[in-house]
Amino acid sequence: MPEKLRVAVLGATGLVGQRFVARLSRHPWFDLEALYSSPEKAGLRYGEAVQWVIDEHPEDYVWGERLRPLKPEEVAREGFDIVFSALPSNVASDVEVELARLGVKVVSNASPLRMEPDIPLLNPEVNADHARLVELQSKRGWRGWIAKVPNCTTAILTLALKPLHDEYRVKRVTVATMQAVTGAGLRGVPSTVIIDNLVPFIPGEEEKMETESRKILGTLRGTRVEPAGFKVTAITTRVPVLDGHTEAVFVELEEPPATADEAARVLEEFKGNRIKSLGLPSAPEKPVIVRKEVDRPQPRLDRLAGNGMTVAVGRLRLDPVTGGVKMVILGHNTIRGAAGNGVLIAELLHKLGYS
Amino acid sequence: MPEKLRVAVLGATGLVGQRFVARLSRHPWFDLEALYSSPEKAGLRYGEAVQWVIDEHPEDYVWGERLRPLKPEEVAREGFDIVFSALPSNVASDVEVELARLGVKVVSNASPLRMEPDIPLLNPEVNADHARLVELQSKRGWRGWIAKVPNCTTAILTLALKPLHDEYRVKRVTVATMQAVTGAGLRGVPSTVIIDNLVPFIPGEEEKMETESRKILGTLRGTRVEPAGFKVTAITTRVPVLDGHTEAVFVELEEPPATADEAARVLEEFKGNRIKSLGLPSAPEKPVIVRKEVDRPQPRLDRLAGNGMTVAVGRLRLDPVTGGVKMVILGHNTIRGAAGNGVLIAELLHKLGYS
Amino acid sequence: MPEKLRVAVLGATGLVGQRFVARLSRHPWFDLEALYSSPEKAGLRYGEAVQWVIDEHPEDYVWGERLRPLKPEEVAREGFDIVFSALPSNVASDVEVELARLGVKVVSNASPLRMEPDIPLLNPEVNADHARLVELQSKRGWRGWIAKVPNCTTAILTLALKPLHDEYRVKRVTVATMQAVTGAGLRGVPSTVIIDNLVPFIPGEEEKMETESRKILGTLRGTRVEPAGFKVTAITTRVPVLDGHTEAVFVELEEPPATADEAARVLEEFKGNRIKSLGLPSAPEKPVIVRKEVDRPQPRLDRLAGNGMTVAVGRLRLDPVTGGVKMVILGHNTIRGAAGNGVLIAELLHKLGYS
Amino acid sequence: MPEKLRVAVLGATGLVGQRFVARLSRHPWFDLEALYSSPEKAGLRYGEAVQWVIDEHPEDYVWGERLRPLKPEEVAREGFDIVFSALPSNVASDVEVELARLGVKVVSNASPLRMEPDIPLLNPEVNADHARLVELQSKRGWRGWIAKVPNCTTAILTLALKPLHDEYRVKRVTVATMQAVTGAGLRGVPSTVIIDNLVPFIPGEEEKMETESRKILGTLRGTRVEPAGFKVTAITTRVPVLDGHTEAVFVELEEPPATADEAARVLEEFKGNRIKSLGLPSAPEKPVIVRKEVDRPQPRLDRLAGNGMTVAVGRLRLDPVTGGVKMVILGHNTIRGAAGNGVLIAELLHKLGYS
Repeated sequence: MPEKLRVAVLGATGLVGQRFVARLSRHPWFDLEALYSSPEKAGLRYGEAVQWVIDEHPEDYVWGERLRPLKPEEVAREGFDIVFSALPSNVASDVEVELARLGVKVVSNASPLRMEPDIPLLNPEVNADHARLVELQSKRGWRGWIAKVPNCTTAILTLALKPLHDEYRVKRVTVATMQAVTGAGLRGVPSTVIIDNLVPFIPGEEEKMETESRKILGTLRGTRVEPAGFKVTAITTRVPVLDGHTEAVFVELEEPPATADEAARVLEEFKGNRIKSLGLPSAPEKPVIVRKEVDRPQPRLDRLAGNGMTVAVGRLRLDPVTGGVKMVILGHNTIRGAAGNGVLIAELLHKLGYS
Repeated sequence: MPEKLRVAVLGATGLVGQRFVARLSRHPWFDLEALYSSPEKAGLRYGEAVQWVIDEHPEDYVWGERLRPLKPEEVAREGFDIVFSALPSNVASDVEVELARLGVKVVSNASPLRMEPDIPLLNPEVNADHARLVELQSKRGWRGWIAKVPNCTTAILTLALKPLHDEYRVKRVTVATMQAVTGAGLRGVPSTVIIDNLVPFIPGEEEKMETESRKILGTLRGTRVEPAGFKVTAITTRVPVLDGHTEAVFVELEEPPATADEAARVLEEFKGNRIKSLGLPSAPEKPVIVRKEVDRPQPRLDRLAGNGMTVAVGRLRLDPVTGGVKMVILGHNTIRGAAGNGVLIAELLHKLGYS
Repeated sequence: MPEKLRVAVLGATGLVGQRFVARLSRHPWFDLEALYSSPEKAGLRYGEAVQWVIDEHPEDYVWGERLRPLKPEEVAREGFDIVFSALPSNVASDVEVELARLGVKVVSNASPLRMEPDIPLLNPEVNADHARLVELQSKRGWRGWIAKVPNCTTAILTLALKPLHDEYRVKRVTVATMQAVTGAGLRGVPSTVIIDNLVPFIPGEEEKMETESRKILGTLRGTRVEPAGFKVTAITTRVPVLDGHTEAVFVELEEPPATADEAARVLEEFKGNRIKSLGLPSAPEKPVIVRKEVDRPQPRLDRLAGNGMTVAVGRLRLDPVTGGVKMVILGHNTIRGAAGNGVLIAELLHKLGYS
Repeated sequence: MPEKLRVAVLGATGLVGQRFVARLSRHPWFDLEALYSSPEKAGLRYGEAVQWVIDEHPEDYVWGERLRPLKPEEVAREGFDIVFSALPSNVASDVEVELARLGVKVVSNASPLRMEPDIPLLNPEVNADHARLVELQSKRGWRGWIAKVPNCTTAILTLALKPLHDEYRVKRVTVATMQAVTGAGLRGVPSTVIIDNLVPFIPGEEEKMETESRKILGTLRGTRVEPAGFKVTAITTRVPVLDGHTEAVFVELEEPPATADEAARVLEEFKGNRIKSLGLPSAPEKPVIVRKEVDRPQPRLDRLAGNGMTVAVGRLRLDPVTGGVKMVILGHNTIRGAAGNGVLIAELLHKLGYS
């Protein structure tokens, strides 16, 4: 058996960082060697520094790991095979670019740089072929590369749209979201704000959905991604749910299906390109499942489908008003929408020979 | 000063019943004389029989009132000026029709009969002129009449649509709702279902929004209401919020405004026909308010605007994708969406001389 | 390998029933053969009749099982090795007694009969020796027997008290509980009651804690259990938590430990009699764990310790005011406090040769 | 009519600050002239700087007030009659001492200095006579004075203990609390921590209850307060409730009442010294009410009793185990437990001639 790849996590104490640590601490291909944090926590043991809030527990050894201060040169010097970034947006861009310049291969969950033409924005079952954009980054003078995890809500949406777009050509997407509090990070949503309440605003989220979804579902032509032709309009809200983003989606289609059952079949049979056959450990059996019960999907019951990597679709109906379908979709925001997808992207890039 | 009207509440221990009791126990025009309940509770004092859960407290005298068993003949014999029905759907229709036949004037929150052509479905600031449909009911051989309170979500929606429809002609409405648990009644949503969760299905709700909104915004021509010409498509969900239904609304318009500010002005300046000038005690100062803060409306902060009778609109923006506006609206589901609206309807019908 | 025992669940669609079904559908010793329900659901497939709300999913085959109507003679005729009862209190007593009379061996979660002198009230790590009380039941003319699962809060409490009582002799227990909504069953706590609220009353709960704990920790002398000598005083409350009962416990001790660390060691080293060595599949590695973090145990983080069968103790301190220790304890109410304990009891009784 | 007193709030954007602002913006005696904040918010209008989360809305004029940077000399120069401090603990002590030195009269909600012998810790209905401790502060060389608002949980507890202590002599108090999230301030409890959870630890809270309650219920002898002779042992927890601290209290009494009804009468008849007769605007009609319903008090239903200034007692019973009574008490943590009490203290001190 070949040796495991050596990996590290940047921003290890945050909420997405916790999910990365949990998944990487017991990964068949990756060996989690180092945890990096902000300077004020560096030197502490992980177990002392982290306020663990997620339901998934890592292997015990990580509690004793010393947090390292994040200095790009030192990270580069370690020669990790892949580095996972769960850095906050305001610091991510500079650090990640510097790392890539120094030869580090970075899979990043942070939002900056997602729309850069030569940086792949990956949702593997949807657009694995975009991965080879990383080859273009050498033109920037980078010896490493950066690959981006999409915005959480967008990752979930595009997985459900992909089979419909392939079969019926999406014309317009109107979507309202009900997003979990973990989407805002460990301290993003105070309980004094969200108990018995919801907040109809998430900074930047609607714009991300409207632009990132077109890139992810776009077509790679030579060295550039031509965005998908449909338009997206979104209203995003925060609700008092821990994990699992729910989206009410109205999809106008060029050539709508004859029945809702037909659309359900198309969704259920979607295998997600060739991902499955590549044998990636984090790829779920089915990227999309269709729930037939009238009151599903529900965050608490469906967010862990496919170990959190599957998107559940329900209430799928033809919509005569818009000439398409309407449905409710649900995915785990810090797994499929963040760390889980990041790990899958790393698996893909490794399998494709980029690490 | 004239004598107060004698009124009664049917279904007084339920959640909408509680709100009726709270509001009617201290009403300037109405004297709450009798509380009716299902037979198994009849004979108990109200304070013993009710599990009070709402934040509004009635005058103390109601706690000592004896609940009466609901027998239509006996209700009719009492000669109340107006009877408010908060009966469950499965029994409402038969009882209310029998009461009307026997000469009782009924303002009802129950869903059956709402789409009957000769029964007005009233949201007073929107369609007070529909009130005179009650005159047609004598053709059924009824000596009394029935007026209906719209579905909660629809009452809130149509109030926000009315000024936009008058000014810009609504073409299509795409709406996703996030509805409070009180909308399902006292025991409708178990806590084991909704904590850390949401449920993307509310039986019958989407159909009600799609049909009732067109009747409410329809035009009275002679003796019939011609439904408004636009189409509505809805996805409705239940969220862990106590009171206040939130709706993410995408409105396609025939002649869209030039700016969002213009649309905001149209909403803010909407006075709601002549309601205000009639001096109805429950009519709010402003039926619609526009919140400019980026993260409003929120259920906990805005549901009691206008004593629960005002709809708050926020995040109002032009939407180039649909050629109209998008916005988030919020109203109190058991006040504007049920009992509060019922009281306002009764005030209107009284003022118009129907009681 | 010997054949599996044939078992059935009574009251299979309720919340404790769901947990029984989940655990028994994949049990190494037991074969779940039949699901019984109230007459109105009988004939339906389990998947149609149940509103699944728990986080643990059963093996798929159970969804297709037809629910059977609960008739004692028919249950008896089936010859099950063990029958698990999750019946509601108001019907449990008659049915269970009739079953025992007819030769059925019943492990019951229902509260009636728990304090009967010849019916064992079992928390296996605490009082496995009480199991042989079932032998006395033949004197009632029963050919089968009944063994009882303790009240949820009491099962959790007695597990934490046992090691302290053995070592330091408990004199008095003052306890306040914060109990999860699932403790009241699927529909026991309406969301309209518990969101942004708590209810400081649970019918019968305090009395159960005060009496059952003394029986469980009592000493079997010949054919009767002499209750433990200490007194318990309790205040019980319901809080908006899904699963996991938390208890703030002040324990006065005859011979208190010198340090809190000493008490922690006593708790940690408690193995629970000989249960472990019997190889019972549901017995946790450690019945009690001690969390050293200042803010643990927490329901969401600790309720699934030991697959839900372990009680977590935290904030353990000497209490100079009462001359003993104070601590916070937490256990999973529908696992250790109900179905999980029921399965463990069945394993114990089988191993001891009573089935 | 005399002129209103000129008052200011320090720490105006925090959660207790919001409550001070709401109550002082419409106070009959006080004129809210200035709002102070941390330097980074100074200069902003209050409406821009504050994230309003409480249910009570201030008069509209406050939204336009400019926040001032908190510099003790400048505050002193303004010559306010009373200054209310809602400063965080880590800065409060230095600022308040400096203010008092410079001649400012400070009513402070911050915890430092509460146990200083010459600083009164006031719960007016309980220990109004302690107010004259402020006279001693001139010995420190202060030209102003400091009076302290007790810890929230302790203020609620001592109000319910006072009548029992007067009548039956309290011997020992064993208490477990279930505290609302607002008790930790606006951002104190992340939603990722508390949804479907509780946290059995609140830093410093138990110590405060154990020491402050004895000072508040102590006896002023000459120039010093002799602490009450009883002992308090507490376990404090945080629960997912917005407002309202609930406490399960076991009170051992020297001379217990014969019946629970007798104790109830003693609580109900407690008027709180002479406070009522002084005509203080914030003094509630009844400082303590006794709820007879079996499931009260509940935070959502009872926290606003007496405009948030009344403590509700329920489930009052004789407790043979401890030789006293047990009960559940509830009070509004940011009103009676913080800002509301602060305003009442200021009213008292003014009436007594200290401002």
